[in-house]
Amino acid sequence: MDFDALFTNQLDALKAEGNYRYFAELERKCGKFPKAANHGEDGIRDVTVWCSNDYLGMGQHPKVIEAMCEAVTRTGTGAGGTRNISGTNHDHLLLERELADLHRKEAALLFTSGYVSNWAALSTLGSRLKDCIILSDSGNHASMIEGIRHSRANKVIWKHNDVADLEAKLAACPANAPKIVAFESVYSMDGDVAPIREIVEVAEKYGAMTYLDEVHAVGLYGPRGGGISERDGVADRITLIEGTLGKAYGVVGGYITGSHALCDFIRSFASGFIFTTALPPAVAAAARTSIAHLKVSTEERTRHQAQVARLRAELDRAGIPHMRNESHIVPVMIKDPVKTRMLADYLMAEWGIYVQPINYPTVPKGTERLRFTPSPLHTDAEIDHLVAALSHLWKQCAIAHAVA
Amino acid sequence: MDFDALFTNQLDALKAEGNYRYFAELERKCGKFPKAANHGEDGIRDVTVWCSNDYLGMGQHPKVIEAMCEAVTRTGTGAGGTRNISGTNHDHLLLERELADLHRKEAALLFTSGYVSNWAALSTLGSRLKDCIILSDSGNHASMIEGIRHSRANKVIWKHNDVADLEAKLAACPANAPKIVAFESVYSMDGDVAPIREIVEVAEKYGAMTYLDEVHAVGLYGPRGGGISERDGVADRITLIEGTLGKAYGVVGGYITGSHALCDFIRSFASGFIFTTALPPAVAAAARTSIAHLKVSTEERTRHQAQVARLRAELDRAGIPHMRNESHIVPVMIKDPVKTRMLADYLMAEWGIYVQPINYPTVPKGTERLRFTPSPLHTDAEIDHLVAALSHLWKQCAIAHAVA
Ligand SMILES: Cc1ncc(COP(=O)(O)O)c(C=O)c1O
Ligand SMILES: Cc1ncc(COP(=O)(O)O)c(C=O)c1O
Repeated sequence: MDFDALFTNQLDALKAEGNYRYFAELERKCGKFPKAANHGEDGIRDVTVWCSNDYLGMGQHPKVIEAMCEAVTRTGTGAGGTRNISGTNHDHLLLERELADLHRKEAALLFTSGYVSNWAALSTLGSRLKDCIILSDSGNHASMIEGIRHSRANKVIWKHNDVADLEAKLAACPANAPKIVAFESVYSMDGDVAPIREIVEVAEKYGAMTYLDEVHAVGLYGPRGGGISERDGVADRITLIEGTLGKAYGVVGGYITGSHALCDFIRSFASGFIFTTALPPAVAAAARTSIAHLKVSTEERTRHQAQVARLRAELDRAGIPHMRNESHIVPVMIKDPVKTRMLADYLMAEWGIYVQPINYPTVPKGTERLRFTPSPLHTDAEIDHLVAALSHLWKQCAIAHAVA
Repeated sequence: MDFDALFTNQLDALKAEGNYRYFAELERKCGKFPKAANHGEDGIRDVTVWCSNDYLGMGQHPKVIEAMCEAVTRTGTGAGGTRNISGTNHDHLLLERELADLHRKEAALLFTSGYVSNWAALSTLGSRLKDCIILSDSGNHASMIEGIRHSRANKVIWKHNDVADLEAKLAACPANAPKIVAFESVYSMDGDVAPIREIVEVAEKYGAMTYLDEVHAVGLYGPRGGGISERDGVADRITLIEGTLGKAYGVVGGYITGSHALCDFIRSFASGFIFTTALPPAVAAAARTSIAHLKVSTEERTRHQAQVARLRAELDRAGIPHMRNESHIVPVMIKDPVKTRMLADYLMAEWGIYVQPINYPTVPKGTERLRFTPSPLHTDAEIDHLVAALSHLWKQCAIAHAVA
């Protein structure tokens, strides 16, 4: 059987619809963020990165770098085993303590990524709680969807951020079945924010546990970076808070926090936690340093919000439509995969601006976009440069429209 | 609903059957391997680690450490995004090239772990190849089992390492359905090795693709560390070779290698590849250095085999039964979870020897064991010390048996 032909057929279909992906090949350079070198077809060239999820540039913070190097030199480059079989290092436990404290929970559990933490926790909860029903926001991330699917639990999808719909669906569930309400705080592609307090209140009313993904909010919101649930003062009412170490904290890894019993349960039964090599202690040490720093330093968050506001104001002034939301994510809708890629290619080639075209399956077909993530390290001049580039493009498009 | 009570009930059941897990809390110390500090109930104490999967101690190799620190200092602590959205770094591509070359394949694809590479690749192949049948060795690792399960493809389990059974099952499949034969080279808990050439020949006869997990063999076998498939000269006949960067290579991460079309297919469709932050470039740089070193240096592999042989010989001399196999894994069967833990606790407390008790679900119930993994860095004296400890224990047990 010609397997390569089967693969190529499906890849050709992707290409035909404009959804085939080309990755930009970057070289991040310490201390230069948001600048990076791009390895393009015509050589290596400095570009300004406008779509990083190292939202605060903490991946290049001197303290975080130093912590990682110190731990590599002290402990080596890897954990040497799964958490159970020789892989639990002192640095992992220190990080888990830091994470529990961040969300003021009894315990935390570390995973190799945010993806794995969602997938492993939800698949374990859904499969091991008898007759469990998972009520999942329709906008939930792939990692949650796959975890729920894998659990084979009953799944009920409620309308995105719609508390009335959630309540109707909770009311329709059998009263004595264990129920889990699964949702995110900041949705990564539209940048909209969940009404956490209302969701929690409805969940409590029906005795459901709450599962909150704060991946795009930890480090960024709340007085200590505890996320939207901290900002809104409802963290103590959430059963499980999940997060990543790979975005605002600038390293890699994922985690859950909650009660001792909950974390011990996932630790003891989750295949995706048990059967895999633990993160390097040096990754844990770097992440802990980043979290600890952002617990007390608010400078990064303040400047982050300022630059986000500035970009939005400049886009408004230039008449460039962007999606309104209360987060740090600035989507500009294009609604066509081929056009989105053309615009991104043009920004890279002519303006040295790197923004990845966002297409299916990351967003639904027909909602393709450019997604800008200003950081505290983007200067006013860099913002002006981006808006000038977009203005230029928008004028060209208007001309193209007029001529066509 | 009292969720904590539900969790605690299931944890209590684990405790009652002796399968609740206690993790040892270690501090690895660069240059001291296999020694590490153990944080026990009565304080911190140096122990000899006898169950690490950093099989060659590469996680503390000066070159690997230097490569990681260099890259952290050069690029920072994280990738800053998913592979598609600003997370592909030059270091990832260099590593993928190194991996393709290691197995002499056209291409390679990096994942956050070996677990995720198996889960993502198998679930994507199984779900996207219409009418696909996956023929899975009964001893396959959890990550493969979960990937196959997630794919919802037809699954046929064949008897562990039994080529005749595989052939009978292949013959019973519809001739025109795409078939995948999934198996490992070295099985991690029994240490036995698959008859790869025979498996490949049967698979070819029935037009099936072959999926080989070399997690416990890469770096360790073959003239360049390409695994058992390299040692046996059959790598070019395997469709997909999967491996880890977290065991013999001493870092963290996983990968697949195969044709361009195959890797591009997984890259383009696998949720577990797409929707997650890329590994830090520094992890990629460290892993690449480790692989490149073990491609040309055979010293570690030679000394590894010598120390494995020495441990076996000393165990034989002392009359301590251990499982025979042709790999580097030395299992000593105890067949009871409570006894296995007691022995491990005793070895730690009285002899400063750390070996994790291996219980369900890592091995089937009733096959609990101590699993020793001698490395090239274990000295003859450390081997003698281990065998003395076990001899002492075995005598005590014999006495206990006689008295009981
Ligand atoms: C909402 C959400 N949850 C989880 C993840 C996965 O986190 P990680 O990148 O750490 O795997 C992502 C993105 O990557 C995400 O957007
Ligand atoms: C056979 C096998 N495959 C895959 C894995 C997963 O690899 P990783 O530890 O890199 O996740 C393991 C163990 O961890 C394994 O034993």
